[in-house]
Amino acid sequence: MSEVTPASAAMHQRDQVAKGLQIEIDRAVAGEATASLTVTLEMTNGLGTCHGGIIFSLADTAMGHASNAGDARSLATTASIEWVAAAKQGDRLTATSRTVATRGRNTVHDVDVVNDAGETIAIFRGQTLTLGGSVVDAVGDRPE
Amino acid sequence: MSEVTPASAAMHQRDQVAKGLQIEIDRAVAGEATASLTVTLEMTNGLGTCHGGIIFSLADTAMGHASNAGDARSLATTASIEWVAAAKQGDRLTATSRTVATRGRNTVHDVDVVNDAGETIAIFRGQTLTLGGSVVDAVGDRPE
Amino acid sequence: MSEVTPASAAMHQRDQVAKGLQIEIDRAVAGEATASLTVTLEMTNGLGTCHGGIIFSLADTAMGHASNAGDARSLATTASIEWVAAAKQGDRLTATSRTVATRGRNTVHDVDVVNDAGETIAIFRGQTLTLGGSVVDAVGDRPE
Amino acid sequence: MSEVTPASAAMHQRDQVAKGLQIEIDRAVAGEATASLTVTLEMTNGLGTCHGGIIFSLADTAMGHASNAGDARSLATTASIEWVAAAKQGDRLTATSRTVATRGRNTVHDVDVVNDAGETIAIFRGQTLTLGGSVVDAVGDRPE
Repeated sequence: MSEVTPASAAMHQRDQVAKGLQIEIDRAVAGEATASLTVTLEMTNGLGTCHGGIIFSLADTAMGHASNAGDARSLATTASIEWVAAAKQGDRLTATSRTVATRGRNTVHDVDVVNDAGETIAIFRGQTLTLGGSVVDAVGDRPE
Repeated sequence: MSEVTPASAAMHQRDQVAKGLQIEIDRAVAGEATASLTVTLEMTNGLGTCHGGIIFSLADTAMGHASNAGDARSLATTASIEWVAAAKQGDRLTATSRTVATRGRNTVHDVDVVNDAGETIAIFRGQTLTLGGSVVDAVGDRPE
Repeated sequence: MSEVTPASAAMHQRDQVAKGLQIEIDRAVAGEATASLTVTLEMTNGLGTCHGGIIFSLADTAMGHASNAGDARSLATTASIEWVAAAKQGDRLTATSRTVATRGRNTVHDVDVVNDAGETIAIFRGQTLTLGGSVVDAVGDRPE
Repeated sequence: MSEVTPASAAMHQRDQVAKGLQIEIDRAVAGEATASLTVTLEMTNGLGTCHGGIIFSLADTAMGHASNAGDARSLATTASIEWVAAAKQGDRLTATSRTVATRGRNTVHDVDVVNDAGETIAIFRGQTLTLGGSVVDAVGDRPE
């Protein structure tokens, strides 16, 4: 049902952090990706809500898939996040990344993170640098 | 040996993400904190290096302790990160946060993340908003 | 034709920088504003294209009108810009600001700057803090 | 007395915006530069204080000189600013830029803007991309 390119699938297969957070890649094509997770007790901070680093990691993962899905290896260089509302245990968070600008090998992505009710939890803007080479080949090179 | 305020200790005790990542709070006084972790296989991404979200989470944790250590509850509102060099499995990463500006209830913090060799891995700048109230009381209110 | 609130008109009337750059406020209602200027020789930098600070100032002006148009005084606290393409002498640049999130008295705005051909020149994200009080009264207080 | 490289001097000579704002380049060597200006009535905004875009432009100018002073042409790609305190007419503002990280052809710069009393007015972080080629040659190519 969902569309995920082979490069995105290969990358997800090797992403230990995404596994640990049980992130699902709902969709990933060149320049666009959606990733989601459910906030568990393990993702909460000292104040009882979802840790800002988890929300950031989800957004960053969506950007990583958007930028690598076309099978041209890329690397995140910078990102910023605005935490807009708190997320709590049990919330399903969905991050959607889209390309907003390209400048040579640098691409700017905007990512929105929303909860089940469609409320904005965070907005994220990041840049990736295209390195060249294939994602599928790169991850295939490494032994398990 | 290390200096950690009661507010910081109480917060760390409740931070499930810090526990999961085995983050240690090396020092935390009002406005300044140092946190560290060792990059494990579980923290690597699809390209075999430490996930950018983990590095961000470490920096964010250091900022959180710096801003709450004085026992005035605060909340992160925005942050940006520049990933400067890759970190790999086995690296010990240390994030040091210091206050660089205050503007009413908003405080700006700079965090540097370095590896064992003292090389800069990332630089982070974030803002926190002081909410008032005690961190110790706030976390003490919640049942385990 | 264009819709500009009294608060926005009062603010524009007093903005010396907007006058110097001959910025026009094309539209300004609470949360949304459009501002434009034509790049002159005086706006070019040492490399012969429009100075990044001018593009930033145009975007910042649009955000300022969006955040003050509803006549609740506000102040910009932070902003970031991505310069996507060069602008050159003679180009007409248009900046459009829209609110993307609110969090207490902090509002996050996204501003796009495009040229006559509709090409993106820069994207900008900033935050304003609502101070309270009336813009019209505040500027009315001051002698010319 | 002050040290300014030939590349920086050539660039400043052609920078129309710096001329308009009467910015002085106090020092510019590869990776480090200091620029200053005095806030005039023309630099004030609708609320009576120095326009945020002017403060940004000063910081951006300092970064531009730091990144081009070594005579390798570079371009600003992204920047963020935190406005910490207001500046008013008559204030002398000084922006000092230093390199904080390099990553291939991308360089990250931190710029502090202070007033005569040494108070921080703004902090700025930006990135430049080295394009290659000589600044002196590039600006020398163009007719007045």
